[in-house]
Amino acid sequence: MDDSETKAAALEEPAAPAVNGVITSAIDLSHHLNLSSRSRHPSPLKEIIKYMAYDGMVSLAGGLPHPSLFPIHNASFSVSAPNPKEGNIELQISNNPTSTPPLSKFLQYGNCTGNAELRQWCLEFTQQIHRPAYKDYDVLLHPGNTNAWCKVVGLLCEKGDYILCESYTYPSAQALWIPNENFAAPIAMDGEGIMNKSLEETLESWDSTHPGVNRPHVLYLVSVGSNPTGVSMSAERRKQVYNICVRYDVIIVEDDPYFFLQYPEFDLSATSTEYKAASNDEYLSSLIPSFLHVDYQGRVIRLESFSKTLAPGLRLGYFVANPLFTERLLRATEVETQDPSGVSQALVLSLLASWTTSGYITWLQNLRLEYQRRRDWMTAAIKELFDLSPASQFPELRAEGLVAAIEGSAGTRTPIFSFIPPTGGMFLWTKFYFAQNGKYQVIKNSKQEIDPEQAFANKLWSELAEEKVLLTPGYYYHPWQGAQKTSTSARGADPDTSHFRLTFAMTTKEDMELGIERLAKVVRRSWSS
Amino acid sequence: MDDSETKAAALEEPAAPAVNGVITSAIDLSHHLNLSSRSRHPSPLKEIIKYMAYDGMVSLAGGLPHPSLFPIHNASFSVSAPNPKEGNIELQISNNPTSTPPLSKFLQYGNCTGNAELRQWCLEFTQQIHRPAYKDYDVLLHPGNTNAWCKVVGLLCEKGDYILCESYTYPSAQALWIPNENFAAPIAMDGEGIMNKSLEETLESWDSTHPGVNRPHVLYLVSVGSNPTGVSMSAERRKQVYNICVRYDVIIVEDDPYFFLQYPEFDLSATSTEYKAASNDEYLSSLIPSFLHVDYQGRVIRLESFSKTLAPGLRLGYFVANPLFTERLLRATEVETQDPSGVSQALVLSLLASWTTSGYITWLQNLRLEYQRRRDWMTAAIKELFDLSPASQFPELRAEGLVAAIEGSAGTRTPIFSFIPPTGGMFLWTKFYFAQNGKYQVIKNSKQEIDPEQAFANKLWSELAEEKVLLTPGYYYHPWQGAQKTSTSARGADPDTSHFRLTFAMTTKEDMELGIERLAKVVRRSWSS
Repeated sequence: MDDSETKAAALEEPAAPAVNGVITSAIDLSHHLNLSSRSRHPSPLKEIIKYMAYDGMVSLAGGLPHPSLFPIHNASFSVSAPNPKEGNIELQISNNPTSTPPLSKFLQYGNCTGNAELRQWCLEFTQQIHRPAYKDYDVLLHPGNTNAWCKVVGLLCEKGDYILCESYTYPSAQALWIPNENFAAPIAMDGEGIMNKSLEETLESWDSTHPGVNRPHVLYLVSVGSNPTGVSMSAERRKQVYNICVRYDVIIVEDDPYFFLQYPEFDLSATSTEYKAASNDEYLSSLIPSFLHVDYQGRVIRLESFSKTLAPGLRLGYFVANPLFTERLLRATEVETQDPSGVSQALVLSLLASWTTSGYITWLQNLRLEYQRRRDWMTAAIKELFDLSPASQFPELRAEGLVAAIEGSAGTRTPIFSFIPPTGGMFLWTKFYFAQNGKYQVIKNSKQEIDPEQAFANKLWSELAEEKVLLTPGYYYHPWQGAQKTSTSARGADPDTSHFRLTFAMTTKEDMELGIERLAKVVRRSWSS
Repeated sequence: MDDSETKAAALEEPAAPAVNGVITSAIDLSHHLNLSSRSRHPSPLKEIIKYMAYDGMVSLAGGLPHPSLFPIHNASFSVSAPNPKEGNIELQISNNPTSTPPLSKFLQYGNCTGNAELRQWCLEFTQQIHRPAYKDYDVLLHPGNTNAWCKVVGLLCEKGDYILCESYTYPSAQALWIPNENFAAPIAMDGEGIMNKSLEETLESWDSTHPGVNRPHVLYLVSVGSNPTGVSMSAERRKQVYNICVRYDVIIVEDDPYFFLQYPEFDLSATSTEYKAASNDEYLSSLIPSFLHVDYQGRVIRLESFSKTLAPGLRLGYFVANPLFTERLLRATEVETQDPSGVSQALVLSLLASWTTSGYITWLQNLRLEYQRRRDWMTAAIKELFDLSPASQFPELRAEGLVAAIEGSAGTRTPIFSFIPPTGGMFLWTKFYFAQNGKYQVIKNSKQEIDPEQAFANKLWSELAEEKVLLTPGYYYHPWQGAQKTSTSARGADPDTSHFRLTFAMTTKEDMELGIERLAKVVRRSWSS
């Protein structure tokens, strides 16, 4: 891709975004497509399917099995009402010709764009929720964000490319790109997400820091309730990041399964919290606008998923992107996966039709309250068993959010870990401080370990597992920058620290309290000996 | 991959296959893995899931949504009895703890191997049907054969590799590999499938015909009711082909969705056919054994699909392969797709449990009879409207099977197309003879067209579409050998011929007759003017 001119042009100031509600189409971003993606032709078999709809046409083409020979004639599902307190609703999907669309249509091969009614719903929902800043965005169904990201890497990345990402990033996304010989270009974060200054410095200095290597043109992030950090990017930060991406011609891949799970700030001093649904409008206006909302050029690819809002086993989601990208993603869909499961599509379409969009938003709001409750349970359990105070009380730690400490000798406090109480998603990302742990100091001073922080973190993880509480080791989320940048010091991370990720999604209140109790027990034992 | 030694060793005579029922494990085929596949590490997040099952463990790891917050509580399906004449059966999949497994398990993230009960069923079914000639074959669920083949190319093929395939091959399989910069190495076929002689010559002469290019190590084929040729490979031919693959160290990828749709030979002289189910044992022993059945080294990857036997919209199938390959395919599954749809898995498992395996075989046999009936309808319609006789009566055509002719001048017969009546699958592959068509001769003699055969075939296809009958153009199935080998003459195909594919699967008897009638009308008009 000879894009030096394009990139030079992009470095100039961005065109003015839409004014007075006049919005334009996506700009030409075709130079971002990789060679393989540009080489795809429409699958000829799929093309011919279009002719089949002609009135009176007898098709001896195609290769579809006859729907009269499918053994499944009716599907029914018992589902919650939008407000689960209102009981259950029965959904029926039959082959009756009045059923729109009939079940057999979902059991047959599709044309790889997904069911038209469901796609239309996704398009209208996108308009209602995100109001993109350009006109011709399109949607395409996919079988879950894991596969969606796989297709995006297949769309944009050449071997050897660096991918811009958060300073701690989702491991399955990386596990996809590492065998493709891609590397992470991590951007430093604070409590509002990746820092625009760090992003700009990375891009601005790229040619001197990475001579001969293409400047990254893809930014991957989980912009709400980031996995693992739990951080949601503020609206203001989004605009700053977007403008830098315009200047440096970067495509933003917004993997956003937790968008609807946004919570108010955690109040350390609150004694009780009311979990009460607001009106749908109030709820929607409380959500941080997505990158799509500020996207006036079509350079955002949103990966939408029903995994966290309905159920992961559906393996169903959709892309929102400019029409050039969705067309190329459709070409990949034809040869890599075909449509998502028709049974999943039928169930979701039927559910959304029964609930209506307004009902779905009611469901999302209730779901948000349930996860907020869980976040508060976990934070309260930590507060119960540790001395929890604002990080500003421990200036030496360079911490953000709250610090959990234990009583040290002579009434002092020993800081154990810090975390930013998440305002979205399912994760609490803890930064542990090992400096005052005697066993850690022994390992460090022995100089037998290349990475004493990681060695001690592994040991601590095992002690926790033996005490029957599982945390996720922080090293899972270290951006892959090559084999020479894996140790704590080589990565440039703070010395004497290591991270663990805790989820508050999957556990009951009782188990969460038991888990934190076991964590506190192991910590006290380890730090006191 | 420095495999010159391995390949040299493999050129010696194969080790003796199992004798007296003593079968061994797969041989080491790890040198077939491509670089990217060898680079995959287990997704760490998935690894930790294993610990979660420990008794009393409190997991704050993982990142699963809480199943109590899924809105789907019960699924029920009305399905055919194994013998559809016996009415319908109601399947219930609930969250009741006595439901094994409960619905919520299918709605949650899985560990990417697919549901354990369903995988066990696949393993036992493989043993019962195919009786592989080696011990440690394994199965892994996938979301349909399109994705399965995508993962196999990602497992085995490097850029620039040639892939051995049938002389006409499935276009979606090719559309996947062309952007990967792979090429087809087509093997000539006869009525029994790819010819062992042609396969051996291609491999034996490779280094002189393709100096500097790696010898192909992957053979892709649809071994029953091939798409598009309709040919099923004979048992004897399979053994010959397998032995050549052992000698030249080739992996056989058997894409076999039509395995259970095998039919008796079409009897041109029969006046009526009885479509009567045999016993399950008789049915099973009537099926040509798969490549897996002769595989004593683990070099066959079978792509199994429920698309043709149950319904394509399920997007569900499974690999059968040696354990090294299934482990690498699992690594790809973790980062490329995750499990197939849980709703599809729940439905299929519940259906198979209700039917029992024996009931499923009864279903398959009835299905086979329905498609056999359709094959006979189409062949009878051709016999009705054309003069249909054995190809041996037209020695100048180098045809196999039957020739459909029309009355020429002075009582002569003008051959229009030939085909081998299929004994499996859904397709009838016709070879058209243009030599006696005046309009074709005008095009050819004008010398304005690089590929007069294709130019005339396109014209004929359009005339058919205008008459409202759609066939699939034969060029869709031309193996991709690079841009310089696309014309009829450059491909070395018979001059003055071109192919069309007709399916007998999707049409009613009436439409099939109408379609053939329209075909005959267009042919008569075209050949007579």
